[in-house]
Amino acid sequence: MKTILGDTIAAISTAPGQAAIAMVRLSGPEAISITDVVFEGKDLSKADTHTLHFGLLKDEETLIDEVVIGIFRNPHSYTGEDIIEISCHGSDFIAHKVLDLVLSKGARMAEKGEFTLRSFINGKMDLSQAESVADLIASHSDASHQLALKQLRGGVSDEIKKLREELINFASLLELELDFAEEDVEFANRDQLKDLIRRVRVAVKKLIDSFAFGNAMKKGVPTVIAGRPNAGKSTLLNALLEDERAIVSEIAGTTRDTIEEVLYIDGIPFRLIDTAGLREATDQIEAIGVERAMQKVGESSVVMYVFDASDMNPEDVNIDIAKLKEAAAHINFIAVANKMDRNPYAKQSEWAGDHLNADDVLPVSAKNQMNIEFLKERLFGLIGSGKVDPQQQIISNSRHLNALKKVDESLQAVEDGFEEQVTSDFIAMDMRQALHWLGEITGEVSTDDILGNIFSKFCIGK
Amino acid sequence: MKTILGDTIAAISTAPGQAAIAMVRLSGPEAISITDVVFEGKDLSKADTHTLHFGLLKDEETLIDEVVIGIFRNPHSYTGEDIIEISCHGSDFIAHKVLDLVLSKGARMAEKGEFTLRSFINGKMDLSQAESVADLIASHSDASHQLALKQLRGGVSDEIKKLREELINFASLLELELDFAEEDVEFANRDQLKDLIRRVRVAVKKLIDSFAFGNAMKKGVPTVIAGRPNAGKSTLLNALLEDERAIVSEIAGTTRDTIEEVLYIDGIPFRLIDTAGLREATDQIEAIGVERAMQKVGESSVVMYVFDASDMNPEDVNIDIAKLKEAAAHINFIAVANKMDRNPYAKQSEWAGDHLNADDVLPVSAKNQMNIEFLKERLFGLIGSGKVDPQQQIISNSRHLNALKKVDESLQAVEDGFEEQVTSDFIAMDMRQALHWLGEITGEVSTDDILGNIFSKFCIGK
Repeated sequence: MKTILGDTIAAISTAPGQAAIAMVRLSGPEAISITDVVFEGKDLSKADTHTLHFGLLKDEETLIDEVVIGIFRNPHSYTGEDIIEISCHGSDFIAHKVLDLVLSKGARMAEKGEFTLRSFINGKMDLSQAESVADLIASHSDASHQLALKQLRGGVSDEIKKLREELINFASLLELELDFAEEDVEFANRDQLKDLIRRVRVAVKKLIDSFAFGNAMKKGVPTVIAGRPNAGKSTLLNALLEDERAIVSEIAGTTRDTIEEVLYIDGIPFRLIDTAGLREATDQIEAIGVERAMQKVGESSVVMYVFDASDMNPEDVNIDIAKLKEAAAHINFIAVANKMDRNPYAKQSEWAGDHLNADDVLPVSAKNQMNIEFLKERLFGLIGSGKVDPQQQIISNSRHLNALKKVDESLQAVEDGFEEQVTSDFIAMDMRQALHWLGEITGEVSTDDILGNIFSKFCIGK
Repeated sequence: MKTILGDTIAAISTAPGQAAIAMVRLSGPEAISITDVVFEGKDLSKADTHTLHFGLLKDEETLIDEVVIGIFRNPHSYTGEDIIEISCHGSDFIAHKVLDLVLSKGARMAEKGEFTLRSFINGKMDLSQAESVADLIASHSDASHQLALKQLRGGVSDEIKKLREELINFASLLELELDFAEEDVEFANRDQLKDLIRRVRVAVKKLIDSFAFGNAMKKGVPTVIAGRPNAGKSTLLNALLEDERAIVSEIAGTTRDTIEEVLYIDGIPFRLIDTAGLREATDQIEAIGVERAMQKVGESSVVMYVFDASDMNPEDVNIDIAKLKEAAAHINFIAVANKMDRNPYAKQSEWAGDHLNADDVLPVSAKNQMNIEFLKERLFGLIGSGKVDPQQQIISNSRHLNALKKVDESLQAVEDGFEEQVTSDFIAMDMRQALHWLGEITGEVSTDDILGNIFSKFCIGK
């Protein structure tokens, strides 16, 4: 990852394909002068920031396109540098012509995420905010969209910075003690320090705990639907999806190869996986597909087991659930008694088995839409919305999760140090570690490796 | 096709897919006020035209995105109306959110090409220019790109308008004669009028003749390569394509199902079609694929027949060429004697046959790149570049072609009328027809049907 800021980068910033408009963007000290050479219209060197100019883009005498130029002068731009946006006709051929033209006049092809990297380096946003830009572009649901926006607006960063500042104050007192080590003074009040560490660890733990929910919001909750052929799974799927299906199909890029359907409950995407193998599996334990199906179950977050309440064989259900729980002991499990319309007087006690508590079964009628909303609430509840305070910041980035775990380890070491009455220099070392890991989240501490890793996941042009 | 101009339209104007930037565009009297309701930033009602404004897009309290708003006030915009361009993060989900938001506040979903339609209706461009916008967006080669740009800049329109004006002057004199019919006067000098008609017809014919070339520029020249298995067709194909292959594959959307390879000669795309059936056909006249292969030959503009000069059987070649010429008597034909490296002293006279003039054979060595440039020149020459004056306007739109043919027919009728000394009212009628058809090209005369037909081929958002 080059981070030379002296040069001017360019890239096509809109998606490829035929459309009304495509945009080529330049950022850097030469953005305006390079464009000026090929633009016949307003003298861009004299153009005000945040203005638009219609004119012709020309390569010497050859007309390339009629374009509109947008100009943003540093520091009032996305990157903090001079930015030129060239809106041309939405043909890939033309967009490439425009890009080639500015490259031939001295711009360099931007690397992945390099506009946002520059924004970070120039202090327009911190690292966590920069990461949210990629999340925002990848967002496919209300939940992931709102999560990324919150992070972009600095929600997580503010929380992390607040924690870091509190620690820094005490850490600097500890460092001061080291300078006066021979005099054996204590500038940092040990009780207050212990109290602070305890409070910071609580906050860090809350953030760590929010990851499961955040990740579900971002990536969707893998939810396996299991059950025997006549349990009414398809009807239940349709009842759950209602007109959601249309919403799903509207959004391009929803991968449909592994996901059967996506159900949004209060904006959280549940990826409903109907493992065909599992169906077989319950009929023929030895079936070849079983292992693979069970692997899907093991990778999922929620298993929804459906049985026919009007034609229920407790023995079968018991076997099925035992199998499922074996494959996925750790995950969330819902049992659904379907077709209650046919059997309105079914006794819940009949459903009980070694592996199933009758009270945990939700009776529904997919056909009549009965209790479907309850089922949705139950699903939503499972992934922890109830556990998350609305004021709580939510993390969804595994880099942040890992950093926060390191923070917690370091603070644990600090607490242990107090306990074991080790010398200040050891405690100061662990404090430094905690500060380092907090700083990595927002990018106050960063290395080329970290930056390279983050921005390589961006698309070119952002 | 609705053409109510009182309302405000909106559409996503960039291609779908994940990218740095997507753009939603509004046009109409409410474009600014609708956006103002959902934009937190500059008061757009007070914003100058051609300015850019960063801020937040909100649906009540819900943040939708950080956006940049571009504002163009009427009449200084593409459509001639107020235009707002909302640049948001390049996620389809977000772009749809933004679109839904402005639709919910009173904008209407734009129909295909409706922005350009409004541009036409508001007199920002004529119909021929509007049509070139779709061509521009669809352009995949230098030739089609330059052709569309020329048309957008008014090249064809100017020529048509010039011809129409000349005719109008005389037509009005003819109409005047009709008003004074009883007095039997001639305001329009018959000799000058005949002379004018002659000149206009020459110009119209030139435009009609340019269509073949224009269409080739726009759509590529369908070129069948025929020859027996060992003639070295593949080597010749590679020799022709050189590194062109890379250029072709760079451009998205090149249909590869019917086209084998695209060869650009001076920017003109030649679609090289290697009909497998044809290969068989020359071996086995009765083969099943023959008919279909011959149909391809019939639909092509150029047939390039390749034979092995070092192992040539005049009888076979004679049969092949007879077959090909039968299938496509009207088209351009090139015979290529390949593998000249192996047979440098081949006598051209040996190649002659009933259907082949030895002088018309181009000797090449595909292996050694010998005479390949000559072959390209020959191909380029075939589609008429030599016949087209560089100053000549070129049409590439079949609607224009048909209208020009009607113009020519009407002017022919005028000339016939003079010849047969029919009365002025008949001549005036034919003149009106000619003016009508000329006017249809630029849209000075247009109907909802014509407009509907043209703009329905556009994408939404343009």
